[in-house]
Amino acid sequence: MSLLIPCIIAGGAGTRLWPVSREAMPKPFMRLPDGESLLQKTFRRATGLADVQRLLTVTNREVFFRTLDDYRLLNKGGTALDFILEPFGRNTAPAIAAAALHVSRLYGEDAQLLVLPADHLIKDLDAFAKAVQSARKLADQGWLVTFGLVPTQAETGFGYIEKGQALDEGSFQVARFVEKPDAATAQRYVDGGLHLWNAGMFCMRADVVLRELQEHAPDVLAAMTECLAHSHGREGSQELQLELDGKTLGLAPDISIDYALMERSKKVAVVPCQLGWSDIGSWQAVRDLTPADANGNQCNGETVLFDVHNCYIDSRKRLVGGVGLKDLIIIDTPDALLVADSKRSQDVKLIAQELKRQGHEAYRLHRTVTRPWGTYTVLEEGKRFKIKRIVVKPDASLSLQMHHHRSEHWIVVSGMARVTNGEHEFLLDTNESTFIKPGKTHRLVNPGVIDLVMIEVQSGEYLGEDDIVRFTDIYGRVPVEAGKS
Amino acid sequence: MSLLIPCIIAGGAGTRLWPVSREAMPKPFMRLPDGESLLQKTFRRATGLADVQRLLTVTNREVFFRTLDDYRLLNKGGTALDFILEPFGRNTAPAIAAAALHVSRLYGEDAQLLVLPADHLIKDLDAFAKAVQSARKLADQGWLVTFGLVPTQAETGFGYIEKGQALDEGSFQVARFVEKPDAATAQRYVDGGLHLWNAGMFCMRADVVLRELQEHAPDVLAAMTECLAHSHGREGSQELQLELDGKTLGLAPDISIDYALMERSKKVAVVPCQLGWSDIGSWQAVRDLTPADANGNQCNGETVLFDVHNCYIDSRKRLVGGVGLKDLIIIDTPDALLVADSKRSQDVKLIAQELKRQGHEAYRLHRTVTRPWGTYTVLEEGKRFKIKRIVVKPDASLSLQMHHHRSEHWIVVSGMARVTNGEHEFLLDTNESTFIKPGKTHRLVNPGVIDLVMIEVQSGEYLGEDDIVRFTDIYGRVPVEAGKS
Repeated sequence: MSLLIPCIIAGGAGTRLWPVSREAMPKPFMRLPDGESLLQKTFRRATGLADVQRLLTVTNREVFFRTLDDYRLLNKGGTALDFILEPFGRNTAPAIAAAALHVSRLYGEDAQLLVLPADHLIKDLDAFAKAVQSARKLADQGWLVTFGLVPTQAETGFGYIEKGQALDEGSFQVARFVEKPDAATAQRYVDGGLHLWNAGMFCMRADVVLRELQEHAPDVLAAMTECLAHSHGREGSQELQLELDGKTLGLAPDISIDYALMERSKKVAVVPCQLGWSDIGSWQAVRDLTPADANGNQCNGETVLFDVHNCYIDSRKRLVGGVGLKDLIIIDTPDALLVADSKRSQDVKLIAQELKRQGHEAYRLHRTVTRPWGTYTVLEEGKRFKIKRIVVKPDASLSLQMHHHRSEHWIVVSGMARVTNGEHEFLLDTNESTFIKPGKTHRLVNPGVIDLVMIEVQSGEYLGEDDIVRFTDIYGRVPVEAGKS
Repeated sequence: MSLLIPCIIAGGAGTRLWPVSREAMPKPFMRLPDGESLLQKTFRRATGLADVQRLLTVTNREVFFRTLDDYRLLNKGGTALDFILEPFGRNTAPAIAAAALHVSRLYGEDAQLLVLPADHLIKDLDAFAKAVQSARKLADQGWLVTFGLVPTQAETGFGYIEKGQALDEGSFQVARFVEKPDAATAQRYVDGGLHLWNAGMFCMRADVVLRELQEHAPDVLAAMTECLAHSHGREGSQELQLELDGKTLGLAPDISIDYALMERSKKVAVVPCQLGWSDIGSWQAVRDLTPADANGNQCNGETVLFDVHNCYIDSRKRLVGGVGLKDLIIIDTPDALLVADSKRSQDVKLIAQELKRQGHEAYRLHRTVTRPWGTYTVLEEGKRFKIKRIVVKPDASLSLQMHHHRSEHWIVVSGMARVTNGEHEFLLDTNESTFIKPGKTHRLVNPGVIDLVMIEVQSGEYLGEDDIVRFTDIYGRVPVEAGKS
């Protein structure tokens, strides 16, 4: 059979999972109670399939380094990594068109794409591998293959796929796609046995995708062909990055692969499957990952509860006391707290939307912000001071920079730092500290092989992130940019 | 009329107000939305009365400095301050006996004590002043005068006073005291008009208290006479401190003034009054201090709410998002969160009791800990580091000390520090920093006239509070003691 290239598509903000999911740290990066992110689980699932030597990821440029970090921890088998990096999210049709063009050009027209959303959960990996095998056979025959999940309840939040004529090995041609139904219709679908959930996973040959796009969505194909022609690639030892050109990407229609292709093509098949699948679409779905106690409560973190029933409480750093509660979801994070009726977990997005409307930081960022060189966490801000914990990855470096209005005091609590302070360059060992006066150019490098963990205390009259003059930056960022260098 | 000495009695943990009220920062210190503590309001109320030149406070030794801080901010009139400091809380009978002995000895037998609990709220200060005037007349005539609040609802949480024979100016002899009634009895009391709430406030001549104690509770009087004989006083320019001897105090009966005296004496009168009084006994009482919005929500702090009704939300540092909530109390503090059904606000004490049983830090301490020299707040703890914000009051000084296992890095963000580091002594100005190596004796002093605010970053293998060798301490604390010096 032809080459299989799993293609992880990361997109969507996950606003219903606020305050854990935020714009700058969207749902794929959400850590489950076992410590792995949804993205990591997707990576593991994709690279665990037979004959996978290469994995393609289509994601936002902003989260590229974070994605790489998540992968590297798991990528012991040395799967080659391709990235298509979007300057902004468009939609699934442009993303998949770009993936098909890329794969077809580099790895052969008959290579198969296995499209996987980055933020779903699948418990039964054997069933998943079998379903992929079935899908591959159909894909080889020229079908656009979807995965149809046997519904377990009358869900109104998903689209459905109606089975048509039977094909090989328990698979079917797709009769039609149907939009999110109302409750009564959903119940009929479940009872009737003809309908399956559309999970947004696909298996298809690159040339078939391109041919069908040419027929049914030529504007998408043309726009993405143009976009790739204007895009620039970079190749590392194990990684290939293709950074999409923003100007031409902006001209591509903002349309999903379902609308653009699946609902229009006659060559769509479905493999029915039971995978222990969840789209982790709300806190109600997340809570099921934590076992319930005798009162039906599912708790992560320390709690003291009296007469509390059927609540989900997630609080990793703060003690939660509860009295006389029922059917609540309580999610505590360092800078924001969510308390919601568990029956209203879909409406959590209203809060995220309102925060977005206000331009509120709690929509976009967490206390911990990821940068190419590592992370920083604002521990405390007050009048005349700001304290950050800075983690610099081995071999990574912050840009050479200068601030006009603030002193920076650096204390190494773990690892080793190489510091440039004006004309001086010196090593700073664990438990040592130094300070950078206003107006001094400085740079911080981790020359070691373990993470450098530093506490930075800024003091001064003005501590805005925009008081920075950046001289050189190995990550190619623009000279002046808001945000920690 | 004879001298009036208000006597503020601080006691009680306020466990129903967890997580704001804690053992080391009990209810009197709770800040109301206007920024003043209950203790400060009590101080203001007492010193606002006519002819008050001196105020006596009976409180725990542990919170003496904190009490003084609260008073000093308000004590512009220069009221003289007497303190009777208890090494541990006993009960109201021993406390009031000590107060009467102290006042009688120093300020005359006929001086009047106005006993005020430190943690109640009174809105109508004019009515309070009038009630005190009436009480003083009766006290002069030799009555033990109680204040009886006209009940506003059938409260089952308070004791009641039954009016007897009428005395002067709308006051009455007390027929009897009754325990907390059931709901039906409470309703009968309210309807009948004969019963008043017992607010635990008293006005009485020192010699009358001592005479009546001699008759009805001679064991209490004897024990406290013995205790005062073994206690030691200290006199400052404006303050007199009498530190009760723990050994003899431990021999005093653990009994309330109501049981020991009021219920037994024939010389008890009551002044009925309407003061806008509240004992701030639960979060339901606290919430009434914050105006309600159109949905009946009372919020302090930033919130984004959808379909939330009749909730009280207090979160000063964290954004709270709510969806589909009704009748909840949500109290967020830096290290603990409370979510409770508002009808169950009395049961919040169950959480505090459970934490006490577990020996949990969240029962005893806040993130911010008060010391004689100021405060420290643990901002963050992690592997190999601990960060504190330290506030040192003008002229205050930490003890000369040494740590075996940790470095301390000090950054001045406001004010000026005088640092002793080994043999060196130097000034550290705002925005400057220094560091203390393990094994170096060091001391920190605020030589200035404004607060010194410092960030301390500790780093090392072992960061326990018990790694401290203390050499000298101007606050007379024992050489080695757990807790920041």
